[in-house]
Amino acid sequence: MSVEEVLFELKRKVQSKLPPDINVTGLEFEGPELVIYTDDPKKVADDGEIIRNLAKELRKRVVVRPDLKVLADPESAIIKIQEVVPKEAVLTNYHFDGETGEVQIEAEKPGLVIGRHGATLREITKLIGWTPKVVRTPPVRSSTIANIKDYLRSVQSERKNILRTVGRKIHRDIASKDQWVRITTLGGCREVGRSCMLLSTPESRIIIDCGINVGSDDSATPYLYVPEVYPLNQIDAVVLTHAHLDHAGLVPMLYKYGYEGPIYCTPPTRDLFVLLQLDYIEIAGREGNRLPYDSGMIREALKHTITLNYGDVTDIAPDTKLTMHNAGHILGSSIAHFHIGDGLYNVAFTGDYKFERTRLFDPAVCNFPRLETLVTEATYGGTNSIQPSRKEAEVNLIKVVKETINRGGKVVIPAFSVGRSQEVMVVLEEAIRKKVIDEVPVCLDGMIYEATAIHTTYPEYLNNDLRDLIFHKGINPFLAECFVQVESPKQRTEIVEGPPCVILATSGMLNGGPVIEYLKRLGPDEKNTLVIVGYQAEGTLGRRIQKGWKEVPLSVDGKTQTVKINLEVTTVDGFSGHSDRQQLMEYLRRIYPKPGRVLTNHGEEGNCLDLASSIYKRYRIPTMAPMNLETIRLI
Amino acid sequence: MSVEEVLFELKRKVQSKLPPDINVTGLEFEGPELVIYTDDPKKVADDGEIIRNLAKELRKRVVVRPDLKVLADPESAIIKIQEVVPKEAVLTNYHFDGETGEVQIEAEKPGLVIGRHGATLREITKLIGWTPKVVRTPPVRSSTIANIKDYLRSVQSERKNILRTVGRKIHRDIASKDQWVRITTLGGCREVGRSCMLLSTPESRIIIDCGINVGSDDSATPYLYVPEVYPLNQIDAVVLTHAHLDHAGLVPMLYKYGYEGPIYCTPPTRDLFVLLQLDYIEIAGREGNRLPYDSGMIREALKHTITLNYGDVTDIAPDTKLTMHNAGHILGSSIAHFHIGDGLYNVAFTGDYKFERTRLFDPAVCNFPRLETLVTEATYGGTNSIQPSRKEAEVNLIKVVKETINRGGKVVIPAFSVGRSQEVMVVLEEAIRKKVIDEVPVCLDGMIYEATAIHTTYPEYLNNDLRDLIFHKGINPFLAECFVQVESPKQRTEIVEGPPCVILATSGMLNGGPVIEYLKRLGPDEKNTLVIVGYQAEGTLGRRIQKGWKEVPLSVDGKTQTVKINLEVTTVDGFSGHSDRQQLMEYLRRIYPKPGRVLTNHGEEGNCLDLASSIYKRYRIPTMAPMNLETIRLI
Repeated sequence: MSVEEVLFELKRKVQSKLPPDINVTGLEFEGPELVIYTDDPKKVADDGEIIRNLAKELRKRVVVRPDLKVLADPESAIIKIQEVVPKEAVLTNYHFDGETGEVQIEAEKPGLVIGRHGATLREITKLIGWTPKVVRTPPVRSSTIANIKDYLRSVQSERKNILRTVGRKIHRDIASKDQWVRITTLGGCREVGRSCMLLSTPESRIIIDCGINVGSDDSATPYLYVPEVYPLNQIDAVVLTHAHLDHAGLVPMLYKYGYEGPIYCTPPTRDLFVLLQLDYIEIAGREGNRLPYDSGMIREALKHTITLNYGDVTDIAPDTKLTMHNAGHILGSSIAHFHIGDGLYNVAFTGDYKFERTRLFDPAVCNFPRLETLVTEATYGGTNSIQPSRKEAEVNLIKVVKETINRGGKVVIPAFSVGRSQEVMVVLEEAIRKKVIDEVPVCLDGMIYEATAIHTTYPEYLNNDLRDLIFHKGINPFLAECFVQVESPKQRTEIVEGPPCVILATSGMLNGGPVIEYLKRLGPDEKNTLVIVGYQAEGTLGRRIQKGWKEVPLSVDGKTQTVKINLEVTTVDGFSGHSDRQQLMEYLRRIYPKPGRVLTNHGEEGNCLDLASSIYKRYRIPTMAPMNLETIRLI
Repeated sequence: MSVEEVLFELKRKVQSKLPPDINVTGLEFEGPELVIYTDDPKKVADDGEIIRNLAKELRKRVVVRPDLKVLADPESAIIKIQEVVPKEAVLTNYHFDGETGEVQIEAEKPGLVIGRHGATLREITKLIGWTPKVVRTPPVRSSTIANIKDYLRSVQSERKNILRTVGRKIHRDIASKDQWVRITTLGGCREVGRSCMLLSTPESRIIIDCGINVGSDDSATPYLYVPEVYPLNQIDAVVLTHAHLDHAGLVPMLYKYGYEGPIYCTPPTRDLFVLLQLDYIEIAGREGNRLPYDSGMIREALKHTITLNYGDVTDIAPDTKLTMHNAGHILGSSIAHFHIGDGLYNVAFTGDYKFERTRLFDPAVCNFPRLETLVTEATYGGTNSIQPSRKEAEVNLIKVVKETINRGGKVVIPAFSVGRSQEVMVVLEEAIRKKVIDEVPVCLDGMIYEATAIHTTYPEYLNNDLRDLIFHKGINPFLAECFVQVESPKQRTEIVEGPPCVILATSGMLNGGPVIEYLKRLGPDEKNTLVIVGYQAEGTLGRRIQKGWKEVPLSVDGKTQTVKINLEVTTVDGFSGHSDRQQLMEYLRRIYPKPGRVLTNHGEEGNCLDLASSIYKRYRIPTMAPMNLETIRLI
């Protein structure tokens, strides 16, 4: 059947399931969703069961949209919304999307706009015609998210075409009689950086992650020119497990070389990848490096991004359904689970994951409806890669901060903007709130504040405790008074010359960023402390200082100058967003169902091999640590 | 450098190496050869060292051809050739190729036409301008070979263009800085039939074998539509290890689907594949089966075939040199050895091989200049797949033939036309010549006679003993008086009704062919014997009779009729063209240098796995029994 025939058939079916007085005026695939247009959305809205039943029956994600002619004008619509929604919801913003007939309503308490089982939403639909979507008013405004929204609004008609094209491609006919599933490794195998895999069947080809190895010149990019992926217009979908550059850094480049399809990821991953990619090309440009893409390509990627929430089972190819599950690594990080064929095969890619409850996130999901192969990261896969527990790490951090403040010093913590910074922020906030340490300012320099704003926009991606703290106890640790955003060189000078404080600044490995400024000015004084909470790669300044260098060359006003490192240097392990060896092994013990095969990647060669061999020995699951450029047949 | 620049540079170099009075009028890549045109071939011919030194220095296969304007007319040229060549050479034919300036001289004793170190050949060149090529006058004329030669002459100008295109493609610039070598399995892994592998580097893609599984509908053809090979115009070369249909049967189809490049194989492989493919489509057509290609495609394949003799080191891609080595399996069968990059990697594909001296062939070559990976067949790879020695097999065969003749019966031996038939012929001829058995006729029915004619055309592809017998002792066993070619149904009747004899008839598994006629008429008489010398696949009539069926349904004049099987049925193992388990293991013990990795294929799943595991256990070489559709990174 052609897509046209499928749609015709679906329309007949939908019409027959709806009450006879509801008129289906149109039906279209838009991305993975089936959109039903009707000139009487009120009637559909009347019965909340209709859509739920339709979706179940058709096994599709169903959305009902009003025909544009039945919509109220925005101004009177706003008035009507305000009449229906209780005051306590605190409505803060509206956006009317003329292309989709959707109105985005921003509220401090979105639950009150939704109402019980969506009753209030349906009431709104009935009154104004527009389909309401509710989002939470972010407690801190992220300029990144604002820009993303503005941009997407500006290209909404083009985007609608993209979604329609994607939708029709997803629902094309299955052509082949053959059944097989293969993984081709394109990067990130027996190494860290440039993560990239291809999942292929006779019907479809899906790229999982497309990262860059920023620390390497020779092997910076995945093997994208091999016939399995090139030309890129053969690819059906790109799926991103999370926003870090080693997983998502080269996605914009795909569009430069001919990719035209969608990117699937969670909403926070989308926002964080835009933030990190813009930062990446800005820094690279400033340093005069050759850029793999420009901001136009980032916009192109954004235009093609389709966001999925955890647990949404979504058709992304004629024979493939994708579901994202919490990976516990950073905000929005996901384990990507693929269900292929009609029960033919299931494979999950962990991306980076943390199998331990952290301050911010729940541990990675380890239950799947079905699972035949697991592809797991192995960053800490070596036998000896055991890290202290998060609890120990916190005790150690608090101890060193306390000591430094007590002696009148300042604490400098180099940190990646996304992930570790927020984790450390929450720990410090609690310690200050509970008066374990003195009430000192915690200064955030670099992109940390902006990344934090994105975190506050997605509380549903944080763990229960944190959500509970924010929503029920009214304590949003990110908004605590102790946090100070650093916005100018003058402010930096004030901090350096001021009273004891804690400074969180990028970059995480001291290879650039504002942290260098602090090191330069606070390094010579032995009262201060440098606390290293993240992995320091060989060759970075962070690693050198960790090794005990007492003098380091730093660029001051364009000239290289030797700076004395007299301050205390302490490493606090245990804040990693990766599962350590014990957690990886525990994950494999707990995972359900037990997969028939495990592949390891995203680790140095020894760690990938060690983890693979240990999993086989302990659990008798066949394992493999593939090299890059291999193809493994799963079935 | 572009190819034009390379040629310009080569011309400069060649001219500088030649004596100043020799004028290079042109220079061109034709297939893997560098062709130097000169208007004074006599002068080049004067000094036999010149070409040899040039070839060594340029590391290319160098051919010198005369400018067409300096050639003598064919008639006077023949007279001059006859003047120079000693009478004892017995010249039997000439062919003048106006496109290449070559004259093919057919002689019973080609060595006498060549002369010491090629002195006579050079003398001929000096006299007539034409470049002489000498071939041996075949003792039995093969119509297949005659047709092939006629066809190739008829398309010689088109073929010259093809060779030029291929030559320029081979010598194109190397574009990539990356270095890797991969094998992708497309068919024949953990199964027998449809052998097909892809060897790829960043520069080139080479298909090794492209067979058909004639016994299967679902899995008859290799996975050719995967992106690694499709579209087929990305492929640089097809290399055939030997002519059997499970290795070469789908090669013509490649041209139907867009392949435009060359096929490399030995000359006997070329002739046998044409014979077998024409037979295949004729039978399939007769039985009303859907044909994967027609005779036009076989001609297309032939037009693109470039023959290589054992030991010729030949550039077939910018970064790949191919050398064929004797595999001992059938006439012209080869182990294909690839040298990739400048010393980067070496990999050999055994195809089917016999590691035992047989009546016809030397054992497979097990010494290579370098070798990192070996891909070995595993037909008899299972622990218990041990066959009797060839000697025992011969004793058993002679015994049963003798007994049957003594009791006045006839012996029917079903056999494949290529390989086993000739092996059995030589055994029977010797037994008759040495009067071990009575002087009975040995009747050859089916394509056996034609295949035998091809064998006699290539004595240099037979083993030393047989060559010695033919050339020095004057005994060509294939020409012995005992052999009778069956050419008509009337003759068949005479044989059936005549005195005791041995009948060798196709097909080898009794699933068709003239052998059925003999079975029908000789089956009911218990004086006769059916001797099974080859493997009988499950589901074939041969297997049923082997199992002891006493009645079988046969088609007689279009109707199915039950035929009694009263004749003696004996299986004589040990005539296989495949190495048995012991020979496979012995090959791995003897191979030099010891490869760093071994892949097994071409065997039932258990046999591939068993052999892989045994090689690892015994020799500590890492092994793998890949599935179809996998990609293994070699370096």
